Amino acid sequence: MAKKKNSFAIGIDVGGTNIKSLLVDREGKVLASDTRRSFGKESKEKEKVLSQLFLSIKALKEEGEKKGVSSHQIAGVGIGAPGPLNTEEGIIYQAPNIPSWKNIPIVKIVEEKIKIPCFLENDANAAALGEWWLGAGRGFDYILLLTLGTGIGGGVIIKGEVYRGARGCGAEIGHMIIKEGGITCGCGARGCFEAYASATGVVRRAKALVDKGYKTLLSEKEDLACEDVFEAAKKKDEIALFVVEETCRYLGIGIGNLLNIFNPEIVILSGGMAKEEKILLPLVKKYTKLFSLKSCFEKVKIVGAKLKDRAGAFGACATVLKKEGMI
Amino acid sequence: MAKKKNSFAIGIDVGGTNIKSLLVDREGKVLASDTRRSFGKESKEKEKVLSQLFLSIKALKEEGEKKGVSSHQIAGVGIGAPGPLNTEEGIIYQAPNIPSWKNIPIVKIVEEKIKIPCFLENDANAAALGEWWLGAGRGFDYILLLTLGTGIGGGVIIKGEVYRGARGCGAEIGHMIIKEGGITCGCGARGCFEAYASATGVVRRAKALVDKGYKTLLSEKEDLACEDVFEAAKKKDEIALFVVEETCRYLGIGIGNLLNIFNPEIVILSGGMAKEEKILLPLVKKYTKLFSLKSCFEKVKIVGAKLKDRAGAFGACATVLKKEGMI
Repeated sequence: MAKKKNSFAIGIDVGGTNIKSLLVDREGKVLASDTRRSFGKESKEKEKVLSQLFLSIKALKEEGEKKGVSSHQIAGVGIGAPGPLNTEEGIIYQAPNIPSWKNIPIVKIVEEKIKIPCFLENDANAAALGEWWLGAGRGFDYILLLTLGTGIGGGVIIKGEVYRGARGCGAEIGHMIIKEGGITCGCGARGCFEAYASATGVVRRAKALVDKGYKTLLSEKEDLACEDVFEAAKKKDEIALFVVEETCRYLGIGIGNLLNIFNPEIVILSGGMAKEEKILLPLVKKYTKLFSLKSCFEKVKIVGAKLKDRAGAFGACATVLKKEGMI
Repeated sequence: MAKKKNSFAIGIDVGGTNIKSLLVDREGKVLASDTRRSFGKESKEKEKVLSQLFLSIKALKEEGEKKGVSSHQIAGVGIGAPGPLNTEEGIIYQAPNIPSWKNIPIVKIVEEKIKIPCFLENDANAAALGEWWLGAGRGFDYILLLTLGTGIGGGVIIKGEVYRGARGCGAEIGHMIIKEGGITCGCGARGCFEAYASATGVVRRAKALVDKGYKTLLSEKEDLACEDVFEAAKKKDEIALFVVEETCRYLGIGIGNLLNIFNPEIVILSGGMAKEEKILLPLVKKYTKLFSLKSCFEKVKIVGAKLKDRAGAFGACATVLKKEGMI
């Protein structure tokens, strides 16, 4: 099949640590890729992150040109970013790990500089779209994706379309209250899903046990991270195993609730913590079954993301290709 | 506009106590109505409830004929019933307040007897459809309806269509866990929304306070019902007011979660307890605001059902008219 004009897309996943970019064709074949630091966490200047983003686009375009893709064949740039943000207006109100970004009209900025259409999507929706297009969600009509990281994000894809709700803030699953009167979440409410089941929740509970003086490999760590807990669990550390099991119990409650509410065909776990899918999946399935209605649990698949840390960038590409009616 | 052939519909709301039936035209004008006991709770014979249902249809047809609506102008019969049920196969697996109904192929039974198409819908979805068509949800694209009764049911209408999820069990909001490790629900899990915020939850908590010996009007009641608690609250009974406030707090948690997840434009409270909307609405709004994200709460309307106890029957009519492409 002859390639149509403008049938390539750039997708960029902007995070607090890294910018991951891809140039793909409409079949999802990667023509160029670029990963570089975003300096989001460190920099106080919003321009620094923007300049990293433009360097990344430039690198993709140069690599693309070597493979015969000229700039005018690129239909657009999709950006997946942490929110709150407004996809229609193309504004990032606030990006948790990029403190210098406040009310950034990212779409306008990119379009003015690059002169091609730009589209904004929240990072969890982008990851869900990526998995729907080329990953674990391929061929499914009802997809729920969870990003398990510092917080918990949600993306719901119904028949190939992102579920946004009335005002674009649907699937904000991280702040679902699963334990009324529980611990205080970053959002101010108590007992939110993400306060218990995110990487932050894992570290908080592990630290509390270390502070209690239990014998555990974790007490050797100076700056305890979520990965340390999983590493220790792999070494059969009792305290780490307890924290992991407890985390899966909380994940089971949250996912169970969402099965009852959305009744998806497939639940995809993505984000940093999902790297531990070998440990997580059996336990998450066990608890989700216990905390959901039989009719909603039956036949649901619970799997890890297939595109791993590229789901967001692929999804950002999909945003462009969908807008252009190419997928 | 000349009336088309087959442009009337019968809608039936089957409950454990009553059967409410309507014969309407495509504009929702009521040509005939019938309410009679279902004997669902009392009767051990499944045929008893069925015969009541057929008597109700017969009464509607007779009244309709007097107004010039002949049988062949009725496009179909819609039935709203408590579930679990399967709308596609037309089977009611189990109806909580009609113990004699187990695996009833209601659609087949009605079609064989009446010789016109029959459609099955779960009661909360039917109520939501009714409110979307002719009630509080008119003109809204993202509607969440809650039925507050013995349990809590949910109906979600997105752009005029019932949200069913992958296998028809979407919007099962009553068993969303809002208090991990909380009281045991009828479903076997602990801490479900309906265990706290349904009429059953109201009575349970009120009884516990009566048993503790607090001075309250409620201690005079022999068989305490949810209505008694609201009546006592209207008389400023302190214990009743406390229970009502607490119930609204739980409603706020559940509705807050659902605002974050579905991001609807309007939340409609229906079912028996919603009759107390004057007391409920201000408190539910107060707590929902506290337990939801600002962006999801902003601009949402929280209202009582407009069609009151006829929402289900109107919605059952809508099921027929939608299937026939008339609304």
